[in-house]
Amino acid sequence: MAKRLIPSLNRVLIEKILPPSKTNLGILLPEKTSKLNSGKVVAVGPGARDKKGNLTPVSFKEGDSVLLPEYGGTEVKLGEKEYYLFREDDILGTLHD
Amino acid sequence: MAKRLIPSLNRVLIEKILPPSKTNLGILLPEKTSKLNSGKVVAVGPGARDKKGNLTPVSFKEGDSVLLPEYGGTEVKLGEKEYYLFREDDILGTLHD
Amino acid sequence: MAKRLIPSLNRVLIEKILPPSKTNLGILLPEKTSKLNSGKVVAVGPGARDKKGNLTPVSFKEGDSVLLPEYGGTEVKLGEKEYYLFREDDILGTLHD
Amino acid sequence: MAKRLIPSLNRVLIEKILPPSKTNLGILLPEKTSKLNSGKVVAVGPGARDKKGNLTPVSFKEGDSVLLPEYGGTEVKLGEKEYYLFREDDILGTLHD
Amino acid sequence: MAKRLIPSLNRVLIEKILPPSKTNLGILLPEKTSKLNSGKVVAVGPGARDKKGNLTPVSFKEGDSVLLPEYGGTEVKLGEKEYYLFREDDILGTLHD
Amino acid sequence: MAKRLIPSLNRVLIEKILPPSKTNLGILLPEKTSKLNSGKVVAVGPGARDKKGNLTPVSFKEGDSVLLPEYGGTEVKLGEKEYYLFREDDILGTLHD
Amino acid sequence: MAKRLIPSLNRVLIEKILPPSKTNLGILLPEKTSKLNSGKVVAVGPGARDKKGNLTPVSFKEGDSVLLPEYGGTEVKLGEKEYYLFREDDILGTLHD
Repeated sequence: MAKRLIPSLNRVLIEKILPPSKTNLGILLPEKTSKLNSGKVVAVGPGARDKKGNLTPVSFKEGDSVLLPEYGGTEVKLGEKEYYLFREDDILGTLHD
Repeated sequence: MAKRLIPSLNRVLIEKILPPSKTNLGILLPEKTSKLNSGKVVAVGPGARDKKGNLTPVSFKEGDSVLLPEYGGTEVKLGEKEYYLFREDDILGTLHD
Repeated sequence: MAKRLIPSLNRVLIEKILPPSKTNLGILLPEKTSKLNSGKVVAVGPGARDKKGNLTPVSFKEGDSVLLPEYGGTEVKLGEKEYYLFREDDILGTLHD
Repeated sequence: MAKRLIPSLNRVLIEKILPPSKTNLGILLPEKTSKLNSGKVVAVGPGARDKKGNLTPVSFKEGDSVLLPEYGGTEVKLGEKEYYLFREDDILGTLHD
Repeated sequence: MAKRLIPSLNRVLIEKILPPSKTNLGILLPEKTSKLNSGKVVAVGPGARDKKGNLTPVSFKEGDSVLLPEYGGTEVKLGEKEYYLFREDDILGTLHD
Repeated sequence: MAKRLIPSLNRVLIEKILPPSKTNLGILLPEKTSKLNSGKVVAVGPGARDKKGNLTPVSFKEGDSVLLPEYGGTEVKLGEKEYYLFREDDILGTLHD
Repeated sequence: MAKRLIPSLNRVLIEKILPPSKTNLGILLPEKTSKLNSGKVVAVGPGARDKKGNLTPVSFKEGDSVLLPEYGGTEVKLGEKEYYLFREDDILGTLHD
């Protein structure tokens, strides 16, 4: 069952990053914070087709830390792990330290 | 009645892969797992037409193992077997071991 | 009244094929089977226009056996016979023995 | 009041053909038959504009016998007679003996 | 207040023509007749922009007698007179004697 | 707070012209008249982008007297004064004496 | 957690500017005023793709003071600060003293 997925077109496979629980500091996260999620790019499709049928490469790459929208994305279970597929256009940006 | 179908445009004919029942291990599959399906590509159309009327070949090929969306696809009965027709754009990606 | 129709643009005139009743075997067709229909192409339009106004020929031809969607198509009575008009894009594929 | 209309763009002016009443044969027309109408093309617009602003001539011409959809078209009264305006795309095809 | 309006883009300024009341003949106009209106073109915009930003001249000109759709158009009061603004595409055609 | 706004893309900043109250003539304006508004163009954006990313200049310029639609536009307060932002396409035309 | 975000495509990261409270003058801001917001551009994406897949640079740059629409935008929390992501097209204009 533990298969590898190569996303189609401009789809991006993402592993969501769970926010650190912060229980060591005793601080509860407000509800609003949990709405925006970040994730790590696991696999990237070959890109969407333009009007002439050529592929436009996806601007994200494996390993990128990305900011995800509150809604959207398709849940995918590969092996025991849960991933999410997003269209390139729906990813809000890349996160850097 | 046992006919062969050549899909039109960018349609892809798919035979769904039933998940192994796992009864030998006595494990019940959680409901969520059954929502995402994989399938095997049986036949592929010549591709969608671009703005100039040229055909853009479908990026999947016969024998590909593909990940399918929860909804969508048209049920097709050919002979005694059931298949599904999907538009190329709706197939989420290809699965590899 | 027995007129001949030349479909416009990418319309395709189709005579539906009734499924053999199978009463000789005493088998009743399940309801689901009756939802997908096949038909024979009787006449084909000159094709849809692309963005430059040129005609893109229809990919089906007279005599083709085609798979039709459950819904859609326009019923047309020519002479005593009933036909259906479908847009090329809505025809699911061609059937071969 | 008896004016002549030159349709704009890809509009087609049509005089509907009333189906022969067939009372001489005592046959009542079933309701379904009356839903599809044929008409005669009376006047044709110069054509729709493509993306570059050029006119794409209408594929129907004065005198053509055409098959019309059940719904659509704009009723127009010119002088004492009633006509219908249809967009070229909505006309289903031409009828020939 | 008596200003002159130059319509923008492909808008056309129209003065509606009231149908002759026909009271001298004692004939009441049926309700249906009043739904279609004709008008006289008073001013014409420079045209809509195509995909490259060029203007496509409006196909109607000042003084043209035009057939108007039942619905649509924007009422405009200039000085004491009432006019209507229509998009070029919504005008059904030109009327000639 | 008294800032100057340069509109983005094909947006146009407009100061609405209040209709003269006409109380010196004792005439009350009918309700309908108040629905259409005129305004003066205060600032103009660089234009919308065409399909190739080039800017198409706005066809209105500072100081133009324009006819505005009944609905639409975004209210903007700059300093103590109220303005309206309209997309170029929504402005009905220019007014001239 | 204090990460830096590089917006994707034509997204613009904005830090909203809170209106001065004006309590020193004892004037309460009317409700309407609070609907339109200004902000400072913090980061800008590489631009949207045109039909050929090329990037069209965003017309705003870091440090720009911009006028924002009443609705829209995605709230983003980076470190302890709240930001907003807007599509370039939704930003109403730039503010200058």
